[in-house]
Amino acid sequence: MTAAIIPIILCGGSGTRLWPVSRKDFAKQHAPILEGLSPFQGTLARFAGGGFDRPIVVAGAGGRFMAADQALAVGVAPEMLLEPEGRDTAAAIAAAARLAARRRPDAVAMVFPSDHLIRDVAALHAAMAAAAEAAGAGRIVTVGMRPTEPATGFGYIRPGEGLGHGAARAVARFVEKPDAAQAQALIADGCLWNAGMFCFRADVLLEEIARLAPEVAAAVERGVEEAEDDLGALRLGQGFLAAPKISFDYAVMEKTARAAVVEADFGWSDIGDWREVWRAAPRDAADNAAIGEAVLQDSRGCYVRADAGRLVATLGLEGLAVIDTPDAVMVAPLDRTQEVKGLVAALAAAGRPEATTPARVHRPWGWYQTMDLGERFRVKRIQVTPGKKLSLQKHHHRAEHWVVVKGTAEVTRDHEVLTVRENESVYLPLGCVHRLANPGKIPVEIIEVQTGAYLEEDDIIRIEDDFGRG
Amino acid sequence: MTAAIIPIILCGGSGTRLWPVSRKDFAKQHAPILEGLSPFQGTLARFAGGGFDRPIVVAGAGGRFMAADQALAVGVAPEMLLEPEGRDTAAAIAAAARLAARRRPDAVAMVFPSDHLIRDVAALHAAMAAAAEAAGAGRIVTVGMRPTEPATGFGYIRPGEGLGHGAARAVARFVEKPDAAQAQALIADGCLWNAGMFCFRADVLLEEIARLAPEVAAAVERGVEEAEDDLGALRLGQGFLAAPKISFDYAVMEKTARAAVVEADFGWSDIGDWREVWRAAPRDAADNAAIGEAVLQDSRGCYVRADAGRLVATLGLEGLAVIDTPDAVMVAPLDRTQEVKGLVAALAAAGRPEATTPARVHRPWGWYQTMDLGERFRVKRIQVTPGKKLSLQKHHHRAEHWVVVKGTAEVTRDHEVLTVRENESVYLPLGCVHRLANPGKIPVEIIEVQTGAYLEEDDIIRIEDDFGRG
Repeated sequence: MTAAIIPIILCGGSGTRLWPVSRKDFAKQHAPILEGLSPFQGTLARFAGGGFDRPIVVAGAGGRFMAADQALAVGVAPEMLLEPEGRDTAAAIAAAARLAARRRPDAVAMVFPSDHLIRDVAALHAAMAAAAEAAGAGRIVTVGMRPTEPATGFGYIRPGEGLGHGAARAVARFVEKPDAAQAQALIADGCLWNAGMFCFRADVLLEEIARLAPEVAAAVERGVEEAEDDLGALRLGQGFLAAPKISFDYAVMEKTARAAVVEADFGWSDIGDWREVWRAAPRDAADNAAIGEAVLQDSRGCYVRADAGRLVATLGLEGLAVIDTPDAVMVAPLDRTQEVKGLVAALAAAGRPEATTPARVHRPWGWYQTMDLGERFRVKRIQVTPGKKLSLQKHHHRAEHWVVVKGTAEVTRDHEVLTVRENESVYLPLGCVHRLANPGKIPVEIIEVQTGAYLEEDDIIRIEDDFGRG
Repeated sequence: MTAAIIPIILCGGSGTRLWPVSRKDFAKQHAPILEGLSPFQGTLARFAGGGFDRPIVVAGAGGRFMAADQALAVGVAPEMLLEPEGRDTAAAIAAAARLAARRRPDAVAMVFPSDHLIRDVAALHAAMAAAAEAAGAGRIVTVGMRPTEPATGFGYIRPGEGLGHGAARAVARFVEKPDAAQAQALIADGCLWNAGMFCFRADVLLEEIARLAPEVAAAVERGVEEAEDDLGALRLGQGFLAAPKISFDYAVMEKTARAAVVEADFGWSDIGDWREVWRAAPRDAADNAAIGEAVLQDSRGCYVRADAGRLVATLGLEGLAVIDTPDAVMVAPLDRTQEVKGLVAALAAAGRPEATTPARVHRPWGWYQTMDLGERFRVKRIQVTPGKKLSLQKHHHRAEHWVVVKGTAEVTRDHEVLTVRENESVYLPLGCVHRLANPGKIPVEIIEVQTGAYLEEDDIIRIEDDFGRG
């Protein structure tokens, strides 16, 4: 029995393809898309049953608290590796491999994107065992998914000869994203989808990276040397930023002589658009998937998402996605949802905040959401996680009324510290220095009524902050 | 020159055909459907240019304050006639005719539904003059609209011979709503749409009603005799309720020997469904009508209504209605929006409050709207019209925090009366007797945060009320 595999979960990046649920500032992997769990949580859960080593999660500064909170919510405490800025997958994987090598130089690790769906976990584990066997023998193994349709959105892998150790075969050829006719031919030829999952021994990988992508290897080495603890995570140093932006496929897989492929079929989807989500969701007799307060009349093959507390009613629709969120609704045919990315780009270009920022804004201490906005006022609901506190701050242009509706808050107001209980309120005049904290064991929720001539987020002067924000 | 025509505007009833904008408790005629004006306001505006006598508005108890407020907003002060309960159009028109006869026994009045659209007001006025000429000569005149398509949703009128006074002709026959083939034949035969507009001399009408529908006439007579002033409106007495529910067409037009018809074409629509609204709305080159924060990409022939403060984005749609409101979104093909009524009936049967009550609830003193709802709290925005006050009240199950965000409120709290200015707040503990009033010249807006275990509207004990509510 070999040592347990170390799952490496790539959790950087942001996704707009499931807009308006996912946004630039709220990545697809963190959106509770399937039965209340996010794809990131689903990814962690696949390795929670024992038999695996502690996962390494590679995240960016933007998503780190979200990743840690969501991991905690499913009972996992991964090793967190922070990139100061994303440098594509070659650098991220190399950095994670260095961490893996610290545990054991010959540790077998396996890389997973955090925003994919896998339905058959037993089949995944079997594929991982096959990949690990070849990786243990010095191979760098990719998982080739058996195609279910002539998709044009993926690269393809043509498997070559067997390698003598288990199910792994050599890679005869990597094929770039094809057109539909080529895709058909590739499938007939036995080619597989390239799904972005890689298995290797840490020492082998680091050696190959150093040989095939020396600039990446050097930058990662410096980044790891300079790395510092940052609130329990390991933050790579600035040296990491010298790494060229290059994918692992391009930097390593397509060049190494050690490439191998394990064929698998475990109900995989990259949930690249709403049609994929619809396919993965439980559906009724009319092929509809309806989430939340949705009422579908005489509608077929639709995905209706109504989890913003509002009723969504459809009549006579066919094959449509109707996605409702607190601040944006999107309606499009499911078979055109791959174009959502372009729609979001157009919205962003037009300066629409809904393109980038979600209605509920997650912060290291909890979240807030604007519930009402008038001419000279704004109403927010704010939730503070037990034990957390917001920054000590003041505003130039607004006064705030806080009404506690759940839990017990500790409020600093200039030189006093007040305990504010459920159904009590406190007034924070313009310019006063204040702080909201939750010293208790349950979440604190407050309704904040801001009044003033300017009510945007950038009117905030932080005097002190637990989370290192300026 | 004859005396000016008295417009009679029928403003009872409720409509769900433009759901979710219109609701059982927010009739279509009051919804700001076209360029910010409601159909009722549009109807009033057609007679505001001078040349008409003061309009008589027949309304129900439910819609009266809304009707009066909307009339005021367009600078009209109609004579208000209140039905204790609706008794269909024969009784409503007879009661209004009695009021018209009080002004002058031989006054010429003309009846209009309040929820129709008329694009060509000059053509309307010309048709009214023609109808009034025949009415002055003792005819009861209906306006026959020149059909634009073989509609199956209207009755048809077959005009007969000329009458010797102006454009009016006798009515050869009234035809019930036909099927499509019959409609085609009726149009080929020169038949006209029956649009529910009637012109008559008050004395003639009352005489015909007494002869042809004596039960209606008797009940209306008693109702008017017992009528009392009710906050500036004339409220018909309970005797009115003895009137049988019967339409004016059936009770009078189809029976009287005095029936006449004036043919007209003034861009009329009964805005019976969203397709009609779309047709009436300004449209872009792709035949889309978009209201509010709507972004349409590669979409054609759609009606997208985004006036709830939320972004509505569409991609690749054709011929769809997307109607967004604060608490409900509806998506349906425009050519099936005549089925919305059935959808709303199904929602109502399922106990969905969105089927009947709008998010913004109008009251005689202004309106309120729930902006956030949590486990033990509710946040409302409340607006109070200048000079108005809510009832003196208390609650058994909730405490309230009020933050004034606009104007200056006068707050009664048990035995004190407080002046609460913008950016000030007041706390109303559970059980305290309180009242909110706006003594100023601009609307007062407050954010109300309710906390408690039960937060529904029926937890209210009214101790005193300006509007006669229990």
